[in-house]
Amino acid sequence: MSTRAGIVVTGTEVLTGRVSDRNGPWLAERLRELGVDLAYTAIVGDRPHDMEAALRFMAGQGIGLLLTSGGLGPTADDITAEVVGRFQGREMVLDEGLAERIAEIVRPLLKRWPDVDREAIAAANRKQATIPAGATVLEPVGTAPGLVVPPLDDGGPTVVVLPGPPRELQPMWRNAIETDALRAALSGATVYRQRTLRLFGIPESEIAETLRVAEREGVDLSALEVTTCLKRGEVEVVTRYEPEAEQDYRAFEELVAGRHRETLFSRDGSTVDEQVAALLRGSHPPADPPDGSRPPRTIAAAESCTGGLLAARLTELAGASDYFKGAIVAYSDEAKVELADVAPELIETHGAVSGEVSAALANGARSRLHADVGVGITGVAGPGGGSVEKPVGLVWLSVVVTDREPVTRSVNLPGGRADVRDRATTVAMHLIRRALSAA
Amino acid sequence: MSTRAGIVVTGTEVLTGRVSDRNGPWLAERLRELGVDLAYTAIVGDRPHDMEAALRFMAGQGIGLLLTSGGLGPTADDITAEVVGRFQGREMVLDEGLAERIAEIVRPLLKRWPDVDREAIAAANRKQATIPAGATVLEPVGTAPGLVVPPLDDGGPTVVVLPGPPRELQPMWRNAIETDALRAALSGATVYRQRTLRLFGIPESEIAETLRVAEREGVDLSALEVTTCLKRGEVEVVTRYEPEAEQDYRAFEELVAGRHRETLFSRDGSTVDEQVAALLRGSHPPADPPDGSRPPRTIAAAESCTGGLLAARLTELAGASDYFKGAIVAYSDEAKVELADVAPELIETHGAVSGEVSAALANGARSRLHADVGVGITGVAGPGGGSVEKPVGLVWLSVVVTDREPVTRSVNLPGGRADVRDRATTVAMHLIRRALSAA
Repeated sequence: MSTRAGIVVTGTEVLTGRVSDRNGPWLAERLRELGVDLAYTAIVGDRPHDMEAALRFMAGQGIGLLLTSGGLGPTADDITAEVVGRFQGREMVLDEGLAERIAEIVRPLLKRWPDVDREAIAAANRKQATIPAGATVLEPVGTAPGLVVPPLDDGGPTVVVLPGPPRELQPMWRNAIETDALRAALSGATVYRQRTLRLFGIPESEIAETLRVAEREGVDLSALEVTTCLKRGEVEVVTRYEPEAEQDYRAFEELVAGRHRETLFSRDGSTVDEQVAALLRGSHPPADPPDGSRPPRTIAAAESCTGGLLAARLTELAGASDYFKGAIVAYSDEAKVELADVAPELIETHGAVSGEVSAALANGARSRLHADVGVGITGVAGPGGGSVEKPVGLVWLSVVVTDREPVTRSVNLPGGRADVRDRATTVAMHLIRRALSAA
Repeated sequence: MSTRAGIVVTGTEVLTGRVSDRNGPWLAERLRELGVDLAYTAIVGDRPHDMEAALRFMAGQGIGLLLTSGGLGPTADDITAEVVGRFQGREMVLDEGLAERIAEIVRPLLKRWPDVDREAIAAANRKQATIPAGATVLEPVGTAPGLVVPPLDDGGPTVVVLPGPPRELQPMWRNAIETDALRAALSGATVYRQRTLRLFGIPESEIAETLRVAEREGVDLSALEVTTCLKRGEVEVVTRYEPEAEQDYRAFEELVAGRHRETLFSRDGSTVDEQVAALLRGSHPPADPPDGSRPPRTIAAAESCTGGLLAARLTELAGASDYFKGAIVAYSDEAKVELADVAPELIETHGAVSGEVSAALANGARSRLHADVGVGITGVAGPGGGSVEKPVGLVWLSVVVTDREPVTRSVNLPGGRADVRDRATTVAMHLIRRALSAA
C-alpha cells in the first residue's frame, strides 16, 4: 500500500502572499524521490483553529504522513508545536536538556547584539524547548528544534514538524528521514518513477493532440499519469508511473520524440541551463547524441532590457567561472557605445532596439571579454517605451560563436515587464544551445 | 459578518514543486485589499477526487468564497470546470457562442503553427466552452474562459474559476469582481487595515521582546494581529486590524519606532528597492523626513559573485533607465581589470575577494559609466572556492557617491550559493540607501 502525504505550510506571511513559499515545493520533490504520493499542500495562517482543521482534514483523507513547516520561532505567533501536540493528543513538556542546547547555540550569536535582553532570550529558549511528550527531537540547525510526532495509536498520521527558513528545514529533513519514527511511517511507500520531457517552441495544445494520437495508435496511457505545463516559455511533460508500466512509458516517449523532433530538447530531465553549461564545457549534454568532439568555449554577454538577468542565469550553476567571462549591462546608449563598442551610427540609424544593435552587442561582448561566444539582447521590457513599430515585448537577440555563422532573431514576448525580461533570458538560452549544438 | 475565503490552486506541476505558484500569493493580496479574510490556500493535483475533497473541506470551514486557479486548458488533465460543476450540483452544458468566441481568438494564433491539426483545435475549443449551467462566464484573456459559479441554494460558497497563467488570471480577476454573482458573495466583507514595518540589521527575537514590552507598557495588542517574519534578510512586521483599533496600532508603531530607530527603515510599506529608486530620483522616500533638497543621481555597478543580480534588481522597477546607467559583471579577473579598471596589483596583493577590490570595482563602475554612484561587490558565493581566511559567504561591498566618503564593508552571509547571491544584493541595497540618505 502506498503512503499518501500532506504538507501544511504555516505562517500568516506566507498565506497572505507577502513571502513566497519555498518549502512546499522543496518537500514535494523530496517526497517524490522517496516514492511517496503527495496529495495536498495547504497554507494556513498563524491561527490554531485553522491549523488544526487542516491537519484533521488531511488525516481524514487517508494521509499517513504530515509535514509542517514554520511556526517554531520565539514569538507568540509561533504555535505549531503546541497545535501538533494537541492534534496528536500529546501533552506539552519542557525538555530541559534541549533548552540548554538551544541556549548554547544562541550564546555566540548574541555577541553581534550587545544590547539584547538576556531574560527575553531565556524565555524564548524555554518556549522553543517545550514539545509534545514522546516526540523525537530533530536537533536545531538554526535555533529551532524540529520534531517527529508519532500518533498515540497506530491509526493516525505521523507528523514531522520542521522550521520555516529553508536553510534550516532542508538539512533537518535529511536528519528526519534517518529517525526510527519517520522510517516507520515511510515503510509502506510505493516506488514511483517520474520522467520529464521538455520542448521549446510549440503550443501546449500540440501535446494534447499527441496524447490523442498515442491512444489511437494503441499506446496504453492508462498506467501513466501524464501532466503538461508551460514553464518560463517551455512545455514540460512529466509522467509518473509504477515500474511495471516502463514499456508503456517508453512507447509514449518514442511517439513524442517522433512527432516533436524539432522542439523536444530534453528527454532526461536536464534543463536548458544545464545543457548550455555542458556545451560550454565541451562535454555532451546527456540528451545529445555524440557527433564528434566539441571544444570547450567561454561566453560573455552584453544585455540591455534584461538588465543583468542573463548574466545572473549564466552564473547560477556552481562552477560557472570555468566558462563565463563576464557581461556588460548596457542599459544606457552611452554604455552600449563605450563598454560594448556599439557604433553610435547604428543606434541612430536603426534604434537601440534592433537586430543591428543586438549583433553589435554580441560582438562587443565577445571581443571586449575575449570570449568564444558572445550574446547580445536589446528590447522593450515595458511598461513604457513601446511604439507601434517597436511594441512592448519586442526583443532582439544575437549569438556569435567563433567560426560559425552569427544568429540574430527577434521575438514578441507577451506579459508584463517581469515576464518579458524573464522570457527573453529563456529565448537567449535556447539560441545559445542551438548555436553550440549545430554540427 | 465577515466573508472568509479559500483559494484552491490546481495542477500536479504546482503540487509536485515543478512550477512555483504565483497565483495564490497574488489572489491573497487582492482579497486583503477587498477586506476579505483568507483562511486557507490549498494546492491539489489534477485529480478530481482530491480537488473535490479540498472544496468540501473549505465549504465545511464556513468559507463563503472559493477561488480556483488552473485546470482550464485544452488537455485531458484540465478538469477544474467539471469538478466545480459537480461540487455545486450543476450540470455541464456546451455554450455554443463561447465555443465560437474561443475559436475566433485561437484562429490568428494558429498562423504561427501552420502544421497544427485543425480538428484537435476545434475539440479543444468545445471542451473549454463546456461549463456548469447557470455560471457567469468571464471572457477569455488568453484562450480559456473563467467562471463565477454561485451555489444552487443560498447556503454554499460561490466559486470563482480562474485560469492558471498569471497574465490571464490577473486581468480576469479584475473582471470577475465586477460581476453581480461575485458582488453578491462579497457583500458581507469586513474592511481590515494592514500596515507593514520593515527593519534591517536586527534578529527577529528583538521584535518578540518589543511585543512583550508593549504589553508591559499598556499598549493594547488584543485587537492587533501582529506577524513578524524574516524576508531576504529583513525583518517584516505586519499588523492587521479593524479600523476601530487605529489608536492601538499607532501606539504600537511608535513603540517600535522608538526602540528600533537605527534599524527601522520603512514605516509605510515601501521596500528598500523603492526607497533607493526615490533617493536616486532626488525625491524623498515616503518614510524619510524632508531635510533639504537632494540632487537626482545616476548609478552604476561592477559586480562579481552576484553575477548580474544587483543590476537586475536595480532595473526591476519600471523607469529605471532614468537613473541606472549600466553595470559590469566582472566575473573573471580579466574582466575586473579590463572593464572596471581594477589594478592587477590589487588582485595580486589582496585577492579578488577583498575590500580593496570592491572599492576599485565601485570606482571603476562609476567612472566608466559616468555615474554619480558606484557600487562594487566581490565575494565567495560557493559552494567551492572558500578557504579558512575567505570562507563561502564572505562578501565585500563598496558604495562610492560623488562628494561623499566612500563606504566599504564585509559581511558573512549564511546559506547556499543562491542565498549568498540574493542576500548580498539586499545588503548592497541597504548600503546604497544609507549612503544616499546620510545628510
